[in-house]
Amino acid sequence: MGTSRTVLSIDAMGGDSGPAVVVAGMAKSAEKNPDIRFILHGPKNELKPLVNKRKLQDLVEIRDAEDVVSMEAKPSHVMRHGKGTSMWSAIESVRNGEAEVCVSCGNTGALMAVSMIRLRKIEGVNRPAIACLWPSRNPGGFNLMLDVGADIRADQDDLLQYALMGMSYARNGFGLARPRIGLLNVGTEEHKGRAELKVAYDIIADAAEDNEFEFVGFVEGGDIPSDRVDVIVTDGFTGNVALKTAEGTANLISEALREAFKYSPLSRIASLLAYTSLRRLKKRIDPRRVNGGVFLGLNGTVVKSHGSADATGVSAAIKLAFKLAETGFGAKLAARVASATNASQTDEIVAGDDGEIGDLKTT
Amino acid sequence: MGTSRTVLSIDAMGGDSGPAVVVAGMAKSAEKNPDIRFILHGPKNELKPLVNKRKLQDLVEIRDAEDVVSMEAKPSHVMRHGKGTSMWSAIESVRNGEAEVCVSCGNTGALMAVSMIRLRKIEGVNRPAIACLWPSRNPGGFNLMLDVGADIRADQDDLLQYALMGMSYARNGFGLARPRIGLLNVGTEEHKGRAELKVAYDIIADAAEDNEFEFVGFVEGGDIPSDRVDVIVTDGFTGNVALKTAEGTANLISEALREAFKYSPLSRIASLLAYTSLRRLKKRIDPRRVNGGVFLGLNGTVVKSHGSADATGVSAAIKLAFKLAETGFGAKLAARVASATNASQTDEIVAGDDGEIGDLKTT
Repeated sequence: MGTSRTVLSIDAMGGDSGPAVVVAGMAKSAEKNPDIRFILHGPKNELKPLVNKRKLQDLVEIRDAEDVVSMEAKPSHVMRHGKGTSMWSAIESVRNGEAEVCVSCGNTGALMAVSMIRLRKIEGVNRPAIACLWPSRNPGGFNLMLDVGADIRADQDDLLQYALMGMSYARNGFGLARPRIGLLNVGTEEHKGRAELKVAYDIIADAAEDNEFEFVGFVEGGDIPSDRVDVIVTDGFTGNVALKTAEGTANLISEALREAFKYSPLSRIASLLAYTSLRRLKKRIDPRRVNGGVFLGLNGTVVKSHGSADATGVSAAIKLAFKLAETGFGAKLAARVASATNASQTDEIVAGDDGEIGDLKTT
Repeated sequence: MGTSRTVLSIDAMGGDSGPAVVVAGMAKSAEKNPDIRFILHGPKNELKPLVNKRKLQDLVEIRDAEDVVSMEAKPSHVMRHGKGTSMWSAIESVRNGEAEVCVSCGNTGALMAVSMIRLRKIEGVNRPAIACLWPSRNPGGFNLMLDVGADIRADQDDLLQYALMGMSYARNGFGLARPRIGLLNVGTEEHKGRAELKVAYDIIADAAEDNEFEFVGFVEGGDIPSDRVDVIVTDGFTGNVALKTAEGTANLISEALREAFKYSPLSRIASLLAYTSLRRLKKRIDPRRVNGGVFLGLNGTVVKSHGSADATGVSAAIKLAFKLAETGFGAKLAARVASATNASQTDEIVAGDDGEIGDLKTT
């Protein structure tokens, strides 16, 4: 592989649909990006025929790994006994610098656990986060939300870190010079919400000027897809519930739409005439197009594809990984967080006891 | 007013669109339910012409109240200085037994605060909850979720109370003999989620047999509109974010759908042909049809209509209030919670210190 190529590390196993779908997704991506190269992790004798069938031999190096992390596996078990798995091997390629970004369809908890122990957190980050793209009314078509499930807890300092990581993503991934950041709450008034959110409000507001982002304050669930914000910051419990609720709502409406068009002969004709319009709509809100949660805050970038992703979904996750690798996003994020952490050292010492009380409350 | 009539107490003020819309909603409801009677609260000289215009004089008694609770008012301020407001007056009619159920489009926080101090919590309930109907795949078309915003906190005992209140609602409001209850979490495995959720899981499971509901365990955001559950239990912070995220998602898709049909001449023709299908869809997911959060856990039932509700929305809230009044829901709920609380007294004493530690954690 030449040095000008972008190398991605792909976990072939662990998705609901098996490695054939992953390799099909790689083929789709390779067609569009001639500079892409892959290290593919999984059982060699199973993967080789799939790679040959798609004629990807010249772009793919297979790394043999017999074991698979199942969807039911406990993260703690995988951390102790997961060395022989394709997931572990895929992370390892990012750790040792062979690949820029890792992509996996596997068990989220296990993937985060392995990423944490092998890649380690970057300086200044207490809790890594999973960021996801959210279809929005902004010109670029997407907002970013984090954390959507790396950790069920986040205190005020974690939320500040999420804001800085989200800002770095929006600047590099969305090309926004001055990203607008909002903090998710149950009301937009300053006196509302949990205690740690009020503190987070103040410290994120304080960090805005130095870090050149705009803090729009509290936002509500209805603002997540809005054009008044680019990055939405929340804890991983709330973020995960919001993400899955939105997916559930979109699925319910899609079903209802299909049923509505099946109802009468006239509506069936209408659905034929509306075919291209409906396809356009589907493309706009298709969850497969936004497939890929990005793990932020680690020494190395990991993209988590949906477990049930098909070839289109896997290809979307690979496209995202490729883009992040090309922009050198990982290094920029680490530099940004480190500089912000150093700048705020003085404040932290002054805050002293208050900070500790806040920590106790949210533990 | 005859004693066989169902009397509802209506706060005319505080909604975004003013009292004319409220009175229009009352007229819609009165047309469909000849047994309905109203006590209407607000400035008499403003309300009288509206009532006369709709020819509702015989069904409506106007109760003069000059002051209005604004959308920006702080609940604590309204608790101290709200006596002269239409909201206070409307709650008062339920408190003194003149009306069965109160309906208001006003400020949610203030309405809950006034309801708490005037109606008081029923025995055995620590935190009242707001329950809302959620369009679902169940035969009845709706699931119930609570709490969607009465309180930003809920510990394990509160979540058990919510389960019992939700069960009572599902039995009376949905006519289900054995409602299925799920606890919202970020995964369906028992080992996942926050500490208080694991404890809540156990105590709700223990209460299922005596109270004749089915506990389906943990559910995720995507399950809220599913047919594997009737009642979804969560804390008010998470519930409020989920509700507003779902509304935001539905709005985004509706917009995209409209745009898709405007795109080309062919798609415009299709939208004309699909008119009835789209109307059917709109009716199915129209948030106005599910308008009305119900305050549970108080000595008296209060229905909170959306602040931006139009006449159709107000009428939906009134319909819900009428139904709850007719079934004597309030008294049944109180009886159910009181009996369950007495049954679990022994357990609580045994739990002792543990319960206290749990409380500190979530404060």
